[in-house]
Amino acid sequence: MIRKLWAEALGTALLLAVVVGSANMAHDLAGGNAALALLCNSIATGLGLYFLITILAPISGAHLNPAVSLYFAATGEIGARDAALYVAVQIPSAVAGVWLAHAMFGLDIIQISTTPRSGGGLWLSEAVSTFGLLMVIAGGLRSKAEAVPALVGAYIAAGYWFTSSSSFANPAVTIARGFTDTAAGIAPAHIAGYVIAQTIGAILAIVLLPKLFSR
Amino acid sequence: MIRKLWAEALGTALLLAVVVGSANMAHDLAGGNAALALLCNSIATGLGLYFLITILAPISGAHLNPAVSLYFAATGEIGARDAALYVAVQIPSAVAGVWLAHAMFGLDIIQISTTPRSGGGLWLSEAVSTFGLLMVIAGGLRSKAEAVPALVGAYIAAGYWFTSSSSFANPAVTIARGFTDTAAGIAPAHIAGYVIAQTIGAILAIVLLPKLFSR
Amino acid sequence: MIRKLWAEALGTALLLAVVVGSANMAHDLAGGNAALALLCNSIATGLGLYFLITILAPISGAHLNPAVSLYFAATGEIGARDAALYVAVQIPSAVAGVWLAHAMFGLDIIQISTTPRSGGGLWLSEAVSTFGLLMVIAGGLRSKAEAVPALVGAYIAAGYWFTSSSSFANPAVTIARGFTDTAAGIAPAHIAGYVIAQTIGAILAIVLLPKLFSR
Amino acid sequence: MIRKLWAEALGTALLLAVVVGSANMAHDLAGGNAALALLCNSIATGLGLYFLITILAPISGAHLNPAVSLYFAATGEIGARDAALYVAVQIPSAVAGVWLAHAMFGLDIIQISTTPRSGGGLWLSEAVSTFGLLMVIAGGLRSKAEAVPALVGAYIAAGYWFTSSSSFANPAVTIARGFTDTAAGIAPAHIAGYVIAQTIGAILAIVLLPKLFSR
Repeated sequence: MIRKLWAEALGTALLLAVVVGSANMAHDLAGGNAALALLCNSIATGLGLYFLITILAPISGAHLNPAVSLYFAATGEIGARDAALYVAVQIPSAVAGVWLAHAMFGLDIIQISTTPRSGGGLWLSEAVSTFGLLMVIAGGLRSKAEAVPALVGAYIAAGYWFTSSSSFANPAVTIARGFTDTAAGIAPAHIAGYVIAQTIGAILAIVLLPKLFSR
Repeated sequence: MIRKLWAEALGTALLLAVVVGSANMAHDLAGGNAALALLCNSIATGLGLYFLITILAPISGAHLNPAVSLYFAATGEIGARDAALYVAVQIPSAVAGVWLAHAMFGLDIIQISTTPRSGGGLWLSEAVSTFGLLMVIAGGLRSKAEAVPALVGAYIAAGYWFTSSSSFANPAVTIARGFTDTAAGIAPAHIAGYVIAQTIGAILAIVLLPKLFSR
Repeated sequence: MIRKLWAEALGTALLLAVVVGSANMAHDLAGGNAALALLCNSIATGLGLYFLITILAPISGAHLNPAVSLYFAATGEIGARDAALYVAVQIPSAVAGVWLAHAMFGLDIIQISTTPRSGGGLWLSEAVSTFGLLMVIAGGLRSKAEAVPALVGAYIAAGYWFTSSSSFANPAVTIARGFTDTAAGIAPAHIAGYVIAQTIGAILAIVLLPKLFSR
Repeated sequence: MIRKLWAEALGTALLLAVVVGSANMAHDLAGGNAALALLCNSIATGLGLYFLITILAPISGAHLNPAVSLYFAATGEIGARDAALYVAVQIPSAVAGVWLAHAMFGLDIIQISTTPRSGGGLWLSEAVSTFGLLMVIAGGLRSKAEAVPALVGAYIAAGYWFTSSSSFANPAVTIARGFTDTAAGIAPAHIAGYVIAQTIGAILAIVLLPKLFSR
């Protein structure tokens, strides 16, 4: 179990370093073109998920996401206590990853976001994108398990574009992005709305997906 | 059969959410650069086809496209009645996917496109792109079936660029895009021309491809 | 053999439709930004090679390129007469593919390029890129044959960037691009220089690669 | 062994030709937009690593990087003498690759960089990116060895964005980039800082990774 938790810690921290580092680099260099910045950020994030999940899945399953741990606990793939341990490790590790990104870019380590992200379209987007992420994972495990890392990377890279919220789809990511005032940030007051929407999407997935993807 | 129809419904709806959502996001952010907007839109659509077809193919075949259902009915892979049911589900699901995209972006749900898309070059493009899509599917199934989701994603992402019509290549997608006045739309009066061209491409595929890809 | 030649004809024609169509679309939309146009063109071409080679390789080997047919004839994979037939089909098919692209974009079908492409750096680039293409094919066949379509697509997409000539690396492509005055063209007077350089690269490959990739 | 060294020489030279050639092309064409230039450069480099490692891994392991050779020597995969030979070949080959890029672009062959790359954030980035590269290789070999070429390509393409240094992560690459005054260069006085940081990252990997990825 200790090795599983180390894998979740390392993976979640590096995922956040990729998300926040690439958002910062892309925003700095894009000369104000928001589509170009989002394109660079989305490609880097999709590639990051691909390599992190590939190498860590054999150890811990590479959840890197409390919504995924919740789904697997609810569908009986892992025990509730293990899921709780996973989540307890994912959240602080995600914050540490944000700090690592700040250190690599020579920014103040401790920051609090001032970027507002609130509203019905964004919340709907987070519920849809979390449902879709779990659909891709559950469906991928059923149809072609070794493709799941590429499927998740492809899904999130596309999610930056087809949702209005850029598809956080991950409560640990959402909380950690409260700790950065780069382009990747979300103001702390708006974190709860995102996490509630993500949880609704996850519950919908828990209810519907096992029927769709049963054998 | 019910589960197959649910898979076609979910897949076609999400395909349209990806196509329309990403077109809207890319257009909004690209600062007027049409190549950049199309690049973001084409990458998101290609990735979307990759993950949707991968996870849904084991259930329904993941046609998500009346031209594909017509091809498989004509070549005897599925029965005519099943193909008709597939198409009957694909079209309204595609419209629902457009509405989901509108809701996620906080736009009016009900819209009618005002974008003209008509002319000989566009119709030739739709016939060629539909023929090519079926060639990629039929050839892929023969040479490397597990690669079909990636092949279709790659084909449509390229089709945004090598045809003048951006390769709708799908009657359900075409009809549904009549219901959005975002950058992805097509004026209702011009839908018939596209669908006729796509049907001609599909008939050409039905006649020629079984000879080319016979064993 | 007839079916093989049809596969080479269809594949080479569609390859040129992708190369010229995407160059034209990207150039039209990019607002004068040459890097953005080349990025779109290179991604579409790489994806096109991936899907064309995947579906056609089981029929004809999917050479789509006289340099590849020459290499396989010289290394004994195919007979000299078959290679000559392949080349005799590839060249006119490539021209037909250019015309198809023109028709899809509503351009004059018959054009002659006025784009100069001449000079030592370009010729060195074509020799290097043709050698490299054959290295990727020969090495890929030895190490992981089913990955060759993706390897060739990746190689040519990268070749647009790491050579100064954008890696035509294909005499049939070079000749056919003399027949378009879009961004993809090459003035007819400069075709010979490119083809000679490509032939030198191919000869170098024929001499050196069998030693490197012998078992 | 001779053939292994030829593979390392050819691969490292071509890797540098891709890195420097694509950086130069992208910078020339991007009209001053640094994010667009880096996007083109990062995609070309990622694709280059994918095809070079795929075709050369069966011969030499395709290290192409002294940090990788050091890691495999320290973990007992290759002998210390072989690793030393690999490194002795990688460094001059990398320089030759830079010169090949210069020749293809018609630039002066012999150049010395004047681009400063120095500071704590950059050094931390190089330590992190070298550790991460070795993590991806060691973890990939354990979980899915045939995916390592794609994993390394994806990792480095993402590394251009999530580190502030653009992830050289390779002492041979670093030294060779001292010999170009294109956008890819690093002033010779700053090479030592990068190489020391990379070595620290590699040592960290040697200490920690065998525990994480043990069976």
